[in-house]
Amino acid sequence: MAANVKTVKELQVRLIANHFNDWMGLEIIDLDEEKIEIKMSWREEMISNPKARVTHGGILGALVDVAADFMIAAKLGAPAPTVDMRVDYHRAASPGDLRAVGRIIRIGGTFSTAEAEVFDGDKKLVASGRGLYYTAPLNK
Amino acid sequence: MAANVKTVKELQVRLIANHFNDWMGLEIIDLDEEKIEIKMSWREEMISNPKARVTHGGILGALVDVAADFMIAAKLGAPAPTVDMRVDYHRAASPGDLRAVGRIIRIGGTFSTAEAEVFDGDKKLVASGRGLYYTAPLNK
Amino acid sequence: MAANVKTVKELQVRLIANHFNDWMGLEIIDLDEEKIEIKMSWREEMISNPKARVTHGGILGALVDVAADFMIAAKLGAPAPTVDMRVDYHRAASPGDLRAVGRIIRIGGTFSTAEAEVFDGDKKLVASGRGLYYTAPLNK
Amino acid sequence: MAANVKTVKELQVRLIANHFNDWMGLEIIDLDEEKIEIKMSWREEMISNPKARVTHGGILGALVDVAADFMIAAKLGAPAPTVDMRVDYHRAASPGDLRAVGRIIRIGGTFSTAEAEVFDGDKKLVASGRGLYYTAPLNK
Repeated sequence: MAANVKTVKELQVRLIANHFNDWMGLEIIDLDEEKIEIKMSWREEMISNPKARVTHGGILGALVDVAADFMIAAKLGAPAPTVDMRVDYHRAASPGDLRAVGRIIRIGGTFSTAEAEVFDGDKKLVASGRGLYYTAPLNK
Repeated sequence: MAANVKTVKELQVRLIANHFNDWMGLEIIDLDEEKIEIKMSWREEMISNPKARVTHGGILGALVDVAADFMIAAKLGAPAPTVDMRVDYHRAASPGDLRAVGRIIRIGGTFSTAEAEVFDGDKKLVASGRGLYYTAPLNK
Repeated sequence: MAANVKTVKELQVRLIANHFNDWMGLEIIDLDEEKIEIKMSWREEMISNPKARVTHGGILGALVDVAADFMIAAKLGAPAPTVDMRVDYHRAASPGDLRAVGRIIRIGGTFSTAEAEVFDGDKKLVASGRGLYYTAPLNK
Repeated sequence: MAANVKTVKELQVRLIANHFNDWMGLEIIDLDEEKIEIKMSWREEMISNPKARVTHGGILGALVDVAADFMIAAKLGAPAPTVDMRVDYHRAASPGDLRAVGRIIRIGGTFSTAEAEVFDGDKKLVASGRGLYYTAPLNK
């Protein structure tokens, strides 16, 4: 696979220029040729059920999407539009910061596939998934 | 299929007891035996890219999930935990309120499948998808 | 949505020119502007578990894919390459012919999304799903 | 993760007791604590398009499903019913034997998630995906 073309610093600027990513308090904490690691700062508005106090699945899905897409951004220079995605919810996510790790499955000419795992503060896998990204414009 | 067991009023209370749903300004605007319709109030923090000003895919995914799950809630009495989901992004969603329509695919003993479509202010389909819900506890 | 550009007869020729579709004994039994209906002739080799004698999930998945893709073929002139798909298994499918109904979710410039449901001889829903198809070449 | 409870020999017997798996000529060629590797013997009936002579997506989907499920079988003693699955098609698969590698994503009390990659004779990734399996009965 091609080498990364963007630094953490460049990707971080792009990441939080995105308002919703900024609202989620996203911060890239690690990047190598194989994976990107993004931390999310938990906030009260992310709760799904006030009794169970678990984090909303929409937040976990957004994290999977962003982590997968920003590993594509590291390789191709910019995040690409998400065409579709699948998210698996493995465990309820209690209040607290989360960490998402994104990896490339395949970079293609027209579309690319990437995946991500989301971990809670105890390093337990709470969600994972994969998305398809339209990378044709980035490959030109 | 079984008749609805909850009213719009009851479902609405449950819907926005959920903090993130409340943050998204969700409101049930229609419910019959076949479908539920939920309106989302757009907010600036939902933007994905400050230049393109499109709504974040994570928000659209959350809407698909909530609309599908609340049609299950209408039939079984409460929303059920999402086990996994797929979201397809059909068009960029410009700033503005969105509307999601949820329908049941199948209510089963252990899990149930439901789907939803998300429309923009011009009634164009911007996203759609389906989720699997763990409904065993609700069927007891 | 655009009108169909192919007849059942034309689509049927294309359908079974495909060896695996021919092996599954596929036959288009209905087509209108909204949906295509394809019958599958069951065969012993399709069994998954010799004790339970249920039809293999791979066969049901292939049916979802083919029915969705041939509704695209009816609209655009030819089936398109499948980029990804999701299949939900709702009930075990006992030995016997199956029927798949395909519908368009959205025809787009670059990709299109379509869905299908698979029914057993008792008209029970045994599987359903949706696929993403790369239709750019067909739109040129 | 728990250790494997089945040997290749035991799993192979179970694998091809399944008629469709036998038709696909499936053979387990490797198994360790992390992954299972299954070889498929290509046959003419698997062709999708007689001109392009590519392998049918339904066959690739079946392979993803079987490889993922038999890694679960290695851990829990038997394959589990597939609840839903996602398959991504990365490249056209030319005529020739294929190899699928299955891995566990998460073994849970009620359901488990597993994934698989399918490679052609040149070791190129032609498809990949993940499935959800209902493992509650196996955990009892």
